[in-house]
Amino acid sequence: MKDIKHISSLQNPLVKQTILLKEKSRERKKTGLFVLEGKKELEIATRAGYSMDTILVCKDFIDEEAFHRFSIIPNNSFVSVSSVVYKKLAHRDTTEGVIAIAQAKNHDLSAINIENKNPLILVAEAPEKPGNIGALLRTADAANLDAVFIANPKTDLYNPNIIRSSVGCVFSGNIILSDTSSIIAFLKERDINIFCAALTASKRYTTVAYTKPTAIIVGTEHSGLSEEWLSSSSQNIIIPMEGKIDSMNVSVSAAILIFEAKRQRHIS
Amino acid sequence: MKDIKHISSLQNPLVKQTILLKEKSRERKKTGLFVLEGKKELEIATRAGYSMDTILVCKDFIDEEAFHRFSIIPNNSFVSVSSVVYKKLAHRDTTEGVIAIAQAKNHDLSAINIENKNPLILVAEAPEKPGNIGALLRTADAANLDAVFIANPKTDLYNPNIIRSSVGCVFSGNIILSDTSSIIAFLKERDINIFCAALTASKRYTTVAYTKPTAIIVGTEHSGLSEEWLSSSSQNIIIPMEGKIDSMNVSVSAAILIFEAKRQRHIS
Repeated sequence: MKDIKHISSLQNPLVKQTILLKEKSRERKKTGLFVLEGKKELEIATRAGYSMDTILVCKDFIDEEAFHRFSIIPNNSFVSVSSVVYKKLAHRDTTEGVIAIAQAKNHDLSAINIENKNPLILVAEAPEKPGNIGALLRTADAANLDAVFIANPKTDLYNPNIIRSSVGCVFSGNIILSDTSSIIAFLKERDINIFCAALTASKRYTTVAYTKPTAIIVGTEHSGLSEEWLSSSSQNIIIPMEGKIDSMNVSVSAAILIFEAKRQRHIS
Repeated sequence: MKDIKHISSLQNPLVKQTILLKEKSRERKKTGLFVLEGKKELEIATRAGYSMDTILVCKDFIDEEAFHRFSIIPNNSFVSVSSVVYKKLAHRDTTEGVIAIAQAKNHDLSAINIENKNPLILVAEAPEKPGNIGALLRTADAANLDAVFIANPKTDLYNPNIIRSSVGCVFSGNIILSDTSSIIAFLKERDINIFCAALTASKRYTTVAYTKPTAIIVGTEHSGLSEEWLSSSSQNIIIPMEGKIDSMNVSVSAAILIFEAKRQRHIS
């Protein structure tokens, strides 16, 4: 085991910075850093090309194999922390003994890279709940979408609850954060069809073809999509509701639409 | 306004019982009572035939129209509480000024009533997270499923977080709680096809017909379905995963399967 720095004080500046980065999106924006936690998350992020500034391990919780594996990730400071410090920093009940400070990626529209000539894209406008965003990103990964756009984002992508609820899909995806106008311009420029999930002027979602370049646009559960999206729509689509209450979770609606597109593309 | 009892003490026995009913599933089971909160929830539950034991309103938060409407619901004690008491009892940030103690329904298999000769049913085995159960119930409502079975339940159906995340769909649905063996026997007796979402011996979910009596069975994200379900399956089905992480939320997977069944039934 290499000789590494050990931190046991809650007053240590690195401990304080880690807490700030977890709790304050302002601090994340200012520094371009965020905190991730857990073995699986660290592996996924590293594989996806994220650079780690600092890796904090707690020998009371981490297994030896993971300790050695993470200790050889290049270009970062590798620090041991006491269990008191670890518990203060850890977000989860199930502690795996590793937390990292990572460098955020560039999610600007200018950074986009879509290789597929017939892409399938999801756009979520102004989603708020971290749990919903996490579920959307899980679905996007499972469907191998070419990109996910978050239009007019309300929540920082590296919010710990998004990281956690996405089970790491926040790192693996091709995710772009931008404003609605810029995304509409981008899609139109590339002749990507815009299908807005909406209640008015809508066709049953199963009667529309998604076999050409397709972007599926979903709004919030509360207020749906903005006028700007609706007026740019190639075709509005609707999942017919037949219940007494008729309220579906946004990540559920998005998944139904995405997988109908996948179904059509698979048989076509 | 009728002359009603007013409670301003946190030591009042009714206040204490309400807190117990919210926090302890044991108390709910013992008494057959549970707590619901919010105007919409109270309306949905009343419409769905739930009886209220007690309705607690706080005049500082409830609007006058709702106050009068709820005050004429028959056969319950209608009580006013102070804002201090209300805040202690309320689960939500957005207070609407009404909380009720309601009588649980019978969710035993013996209570089931399926009128449709060609039913579409969802079975979820041992779901744990209240948020997932709530989302499943919202989807079940929107799809107008004939019944939802929760096999080997781990969480009390009247858990406040299930009520909240189901946005009232826990009241509107035809929900049965039972053990896996009894549910399998019930489905087989009625010649309802059992389609298990599973990773092995599975056909792509879009290649299977759900146009005859159908039950779609989903397990937990962590460990999938039990052997008992898998060995009773008419056909195992799978949503092909094409991503890097391949992990979908259970309520999302269930919705994709249910709405594929709906699609087939609509065009057939």
